[in-house]
Parts: sequence; structure tokens; C-alpha cells
Amino acid sequence: MEDILREVLSKIKPSEQEKELVESVKNEVLEIAEDTIKDVNLKVIPYFVGSLAKDTYLAGDHDIDLFLAFPLEINLEKLREEGLKLAKAIGEKLESYEVAYAEHPYVRAKYKGFKIDLVPCYDVKDWREVKTAVDRSILHNKWVLKNLNGKNDEVRLLKRFLKGIGVYGSEIYVKGFSGYLTELLIIYYGSFINVIKNHELLFKQKIIDLEGWLRKEPEISLKTVEREKESPLIIIDPVDPRRNVASALSWENFARFYFRSKEFLKKPSIKFFFPKEVPIGDYKELLRKKGANLVTLLFEKPDLIDDILLPQLEKSAKGFEKALELRGFRVYDSNWGYKEKAFIMLEIDRLEKPKIGIKQGPEFYTERGLNFYVKNERVWIRGRQLFSEKEAANTIVDIIVELLDKNQVSLGKNVRDFIRNAKILINFVPPELKDEAYLFLSKEKWDLKS
Amino acid sequence: MEDILREVLSKIKPSEQEKELVESVKNEVLEIAEDTIKDVNLKVIPYFVGSLAKDTYLAGDHDIDLFLAFPLEINLEKLREEGLKLAKAIGEKLESYEVAYAEHPYVRAKYKGFKIDLVPCYDVKDWREVKTAVDRSILHNKWVLKNLNGKNDEVRLLKRFLKGIGVYGSEIYVKGFSGYLTELLIIYYGSFINVIKNHELLFKQKIIDLEGWLRKEPEISLKTVEREKESPLIIIDPVDPRRNVASALSWENFARFYFRSKEFLKKPSIKFFFPKEVPIGDYKELLRKKGANLVTLLFEKPDLIDDILLPQLEKSAKGFEKALELRGFRVYDSNWGYKEKAFIMLEIDRLEKPKIGIKQGPEFYTERGLNFYVKNERVWIRGRQLFSEKEAANTIVDIIVELLDKNQVSLGKNVRDFIRNAKILINFVPPELKDEAYLFLSKEKWDLKS
Repeated sequence: MEDILREVLSKIKPSEQEKELVESVKNEVLEIAEDTIKDVNLKVIPYFVGSLAKDTYLAGDHDIDLFLAFPLEINLEKLREEGLKLAKAIGEKLESYEVAYAEHPYVRAKYKGFKIDLVPCYDVKDWREVKTAVDRSILHNKWVLKNLNGKNDEVRLLKRFLKGIGVYGSEIYVKGFSGYLTELLIIYYGSFINVIKNHELLFKQKIIDLEGWLRKEPEISLKTVEREKESPLIIIDPVDPRRNVASALSWENFARFYFRSKEFLKKPSIKFFFPKEVPIGDYKELLRKKGANLVTLLFEKPDLIDDILLPQLEKSAKGFEKALELRGFRVYDSNWGYKEKAFIMLEIDRLEKPKIGIKQGPEFYTERGLNFYVKNERVWIRGRQLFSEKEAANTIVDIIVELLDKNQVSLGKNVRDFIRNAKILINFVPPELKDEAYLFLSKEKWDLKS
Repeated sequence: MEDILREVLSKIKPSEQEKELVESVKNEVLEIAEDTIKDVNLKVIPYFVGSLAKDTYLAGDHDIDLFLAFPLEINLEKLREEGLKLAKAIGEKLESYEVAYAEHPYVRAKYKGFKIDLVPCYDVKDWREVKTAVDRSILHNKWVLKNLNGKNDEVRLLKRFLKGIGVYGSEIYVKGFSGYLTELLIIYYGSFINVIKNHELLFKQKIIDLEGWLRKEPEISLKTVEREKESPLIIIDPVDPRRNVASALSWENFARFYFRSKEFLKKPSIKFFFPKEVPIGDYKELLRKKGANLVTLLFEKPDLIDDILLPQLEKSAKGFEKALELRGFRVYDSNWGYKEKAFIMLEIDRLEKPKIGIKQGPEFYTERGLNFYVKNERVWIRGRQLFSEKEAANTIVDIIVELLDKNQVSLGKNVRDFIRNAKILINFVPPELKDEAYLFLSKEKWDLKS
């Protein structure tokens, strides 16, 4: 075990040269930022946040987060306006930049091979002052620096483990462990191996309260606990009792962490940190072997960021699952995403249904029974219940077209019109989606064991 | 309406010659019976019962029921033995005979083109003395003769109507209106047309109590009402408060009577009494048109009377419906019966399922979850629930064979071994079953409207 962790660390711990490079680039960027701030008529303070600022980043993984903290006095509209202006002005002095949009606009720049996010925020001193989602980052940074106690490499090991098993990242479409959550787990349990050993306890205990909020702010923190009770974990944010740091973590990802921890303890191996690529097989052969069918909706990728696009694709895929189940198909699973084009994949049991289905009517002696009797051509009875036959669309393509025409699928609102114009592909995908189709159909994509 | 009923009556009312023939044959049979009884050392009284005895039979429809009533003093075993001996002795003197078995054995003989049932029973004076199911017939006969009040032709019209719409007969596999029930309805409502007009009231009122049993024997008759409360009609037997005369009537047949009465009142026609034969189409074409599939189990006809065979075939057909639904097929309908061979037909949505199905496991963090994780090869999670794939038989033939092998279909006990050796035919039936297949698949067999 020792050897394995040492080997992993040798691969993920930044070298002295790398650290020096990072520091020098940070210093250059800071100088440029401070120079630019001078021209602004406001007291803006630049803060580095994120894993580079906390020295918990993995070798080769250096995105710089520079937060531009504005005084609390200015209003939100002004913060957006002035913040973006300032971030752009800094961006101008770097190599290249573009404006990106989250809760409010920020700038993504490039400089000497580094990605640099320039994010306007408020300069908050504690949680009561927090006004926007990003304000908390400065508080997180301070808290971790104060409490990490030299366990930086332990954080690196846990991050790499979580990346290796595919559950790292708090983006809405990943629903995994965030960097901050990783740091808090190390601070709480003391080491990588202790986190892993406590996977069972972590689930059973469920609530972690590093700053004693349940005592200091019982009303607020109990409200958080109540609100988050369906989450796999509740880790009350040390800098804000209103927040569960693990609120984005899905049950699926927690379960993955849970089983992979078990396996790792039983048989430690470097492959948990650096998994081998899954060998890709032939999806068509797999379809034949399983006797299942793959329906792919292929459409123009809407111009949206992942945070918005992917959840809407997910919602749409689930919408198709439900609508097709109601029409008598079994949908075994669904998959979504984009390469050049966006796609929704559905694994279904068959491509056709009988043309004629059975319609169950009311009991025969009722008013509605009489109507049913009059309205339908062929009517029979089982027990007291009337039945009749009805014709219905019977191929999967016709049914999907009908569902879309009649607006009978729940679709994400920004992707709806794109999906309406989708091509419907049966048991065939374009070359760019071949691997995706295989990973989906083989369940490699989600297999807890692989 | 008048004209129609007159026309119907002209076809179904026996002519004077026919009545004379019936009377003369009855007399001859009675003489033979009385002669034979003389040789028996017991006081046996012969009674004619049934529609010939009550003069409510339809032209051309003359089965003679001669009941041989033994004194109450002899025990049941002796009645069976002596009764059968006597019936056989009478049979010997007629043209031909065979022994048949119901609750106890009786003799079916032939004489001058008439079928003659010779049935031993007890000579009961009222319901308290009834010992076997057939004893009541003598009481029924007397009660009807006393109360029919010359409405014999009205009974004939109702019988023909019920035959025409396919709901006449109290046999366990018909579940229709018996002759006695028909007579009681006429006695209660006064005429054929009044019965038809009161179809709605008949359903709503539900209980008919011609002999005032609810007053005279409230405890016993209320028990009957309670026991029969799920029947479409309760007609307390005028000769026995323990019995619902309509207890064999199914909801299906009552509903058929209900709708056909409505149609007849709206547009009276002779076709209700004498329906045209349904034109038979091609079942294969129908299968193609519907996009459905027909699975037929064909097997040796067990040597059982209809009263036993047909309910067991029904039970077995329902058993297949249920077992196949559990295996992921939709069974639209089932049909059963026999020609040369016995058969069960199933109309199903498809002939194959994917080879691989999805198995839902327990929640992941439980003991059972861990077992499921360990036992299955590929495991994934949705929410907190584990899932895995399993291989399964996938063609309908394999699945039926497996269901039979594993004893996972509920089958009638006397037909089970026959069904185990059935041939399984897919979308094809032997010539003798072509019409049956068409009537089944087209729903003509049960259509309330045709």
C-alpha cells in the first residue's frame, strides 16, 4: 500500500520546477492585474483561489483562478458591469481571452500555456455578507489554508483516486466530489487512507460539521440538514452553515466511491488512480449479442455551456424513457452528450409493436360504459369491464415522430427545437459516436466494477 | 315488433303434429319405465322434467328428461347403485344407451330420434329434503307448471333471443341463462318484451324473490344474497332459498344480454333471434394486418366431459397469460377449446424478447446490496438502487418450454400432462382450427355488437 501511494504521488505531485513556474506565472498575472486595477476608481482586491492557491493541484493541472473582489458597497449591477470591464482589461494584457457566463459574466484568458479565469466577486469577510455564488470561494480558500496542516499530498492522493474512479468534479453534469469537498474530507479524516477506510462510516454518520455550526447556529444549520436529508452526505460548509458542501454529489457517484473503496482496501492497486482505458468493442456485434436495439437522436449541438446543455439533455432523455414506456416499449437505459453533434441514445427492447392495441374501457353498466360501447367499433367484455381495439403507430420511428408532434415528451426547454429536428438513427451511429455507443451498450460507462 | 315476434314464434313453436309426436314418445317411454320399475323392489316414481315436461321447448329441440325418484329412506350409495341398475334396465329396452357421469351416474339413451336422459334422484317434497343436485328438478317443474299461467310462448321467445345472442345455457363452460331462469324471468315480468324492456332495472334491482323467501326464511335467504353479491343477478330459487338461480350467469353474458336488449329495443329485427353466420376471413391475413402473433398449444383431447375439461382449459389459458406477462410479453387475449385435438390460443405482441434483461437489485449500502454487487458480473446504479444484466430465454417457444419445465404456469390438474406434451404452433393452425383462429383474432367471438 505504502509503495503504491508513493508511486502515485511521484506522478501527481508537482516538481520543484513546476512549482516555480506556477509561482512565477501567478506573480506575473498578479502584477498585470494590480496594474490594471490602479486605473479603476474602486478598491478592488485580487485573490488567488482554487487548487493552485491552496497548493493542492495535481502535476500538469494548472488552471489559475484570480478573483477580483469588489467592495460590498457597490450594487450587483455595477459589480457585473465594472467587474467585466476590469476582467476584460486584464485579459487584453494577457495572450487571449473570451467572456464566459455563469451567475455573472467573467473572463477566461490564456497566458503562457495557463488557463486563467478572471472572476469578479464581492470582498466578503463572512457568510452573512455573501451575495453571489462565487463570493464564498475566498472564504473557502482562507479556511483550507488555515486548517490543512500540511496534508496537501493527501489531498492530491484523494483527488487522483476520485478522478481515477470517475467521480471527481462538482459540475452539475458530473455530480461528483468537488476539490473543496476533497480537502474537507482530508482535514476531517487526516489522510487519504483514512478517508477510504471510513467509506462505510462516512455513509452511516452522514453529517460532518467541522466548524461546530450545529452548536453555534443550530437553527440555520438544522435547516440545511433538513433540506439536504436526501443527499448521500451532508458536510456543513465550515464557512457557511446554510450550505452542504456535498449537495451536488449524486447517489450514483457516492456508491461508486463506496464500492471502489472496498475493492481498493481488499486489493490495492495503482489502477484505481490511473485506470486502463477500457478496450472498445464493436457496438453492432454487442447489439446482436444482446438482442436489444439502439435508437439515437442526432441533432445540432445547441450553443450552450455544459452546465446548461447537459442537464437539459438528461431531462430530455428521461422524457423519452417515460414516454416510450407509456407506449409499450421497454427502455433499458439512456445516454446523452455531444461530440460534433448532440445526441440522445436509447437502448430499447424492440423496434415495432403490433399495429393494434387493446383499449380498456369503463364498466359496462355506467353512462361512460354506454358511450364507450357506442363510440367504438368492436367492443367486448371481461368481467364487468369493456374493452376495444385501437390502431396505433407501431414502429419506433413513427412513435417518436408522433410523440414530438403531439408534444408528449418532456424536453429541456433550450434543446427542444433542436431535438424536434433530430435525425432518428436505428441500430447505427456515425463514426464519431461508435465508442460512445459501445461504452453505453456494454454498460462499461457505469459499471461499478470496471 | 309484433310482426317480428309473430314471425319468430312461427319458427320456434312446435306444431300440433310435433306436440303429438312428443306426447306419444313420452307415453311410450313412460310405459317402458313403469314396466321396468315393477321389477324393482322399491317405490320408484318416474317424473318428466325439463322443457318438454313444461311445454316450453323450442320446435325441433326435444330432449326428454325422465327422472327416477327413489324414496328418501334409502341411502345415497344404494340410490347410485339401484338407480343406475334401473336406468340401464330401461335403456336396454330403448334403442341404445350409454352411462354418463355427473354428481352421480345416469343413462343417456336414444329412442325414435329422441335423446332421453334417465336420471336417478330422490323423491323430495320440499327443499329441506334435497340431498343431491338433481333432486330439485322435480320441484322446479312443479313450481313452473303451477305459475307459468299460459306464458309458454313468451318463454320460447326469450329462450330463442338468448340463444340468438349466444348466452343461453347454464353449463359451467357457457355461464349463460338456464331454461329455468328464463321461465322465472317470464313469470316475473309477464312477457318477453317486458323482460327486454327491463334489462336496466333488472341489473339495478338485482334481487328477485318470487316466493317471498326474504320474509319467510330471512336468515337463510339473506345468507344466499350475501354469498352471491358478486353475481350480476340474484334470483332466489322459488323452491329453495339457499340457491341463486342465476349463480352460473357470468358478467360477460349478462352484459351481452344488456347491450343486445338495448339494440333490439332501438331497432327490432329477427336477426337477434336468428343471427346470420359470421363470414369467416383469413386468420393469417388478419395477423399481418394487426401485426400481432398467434401462439397455439395443440394437444391430445383429455377424455373428460365438457363440464370438467373446459374450465380446466380456461384455467390453463389464464395461467399462460399470467406467466407470459410476467416474462415481459403482452398477452392480448386467450382462447381455448377442442375439435379433434384440444387447444389453447394466445394472442401476443411479439415472438422474441432481447436476450438480455435488466435485473433490479437492492439498495447499494445494505447487506443484500453487497451480495448483489459480489454475485453479479456487471453492476451499476441508478439513484440508490443497484442493477445488473441477466441473460434469459428470449423466444416465445423457449420461454413456454421453460415455464412448463419449471412448473411456472398454473394449469388445470387433469389437463396438465396433456399440455406438457403440446405442440407449440406459431402464427399457424391446422385446417380444423382455421375458423376458430379467425373468430378469436377478429374478436367476432366476443364482439358485443356483432
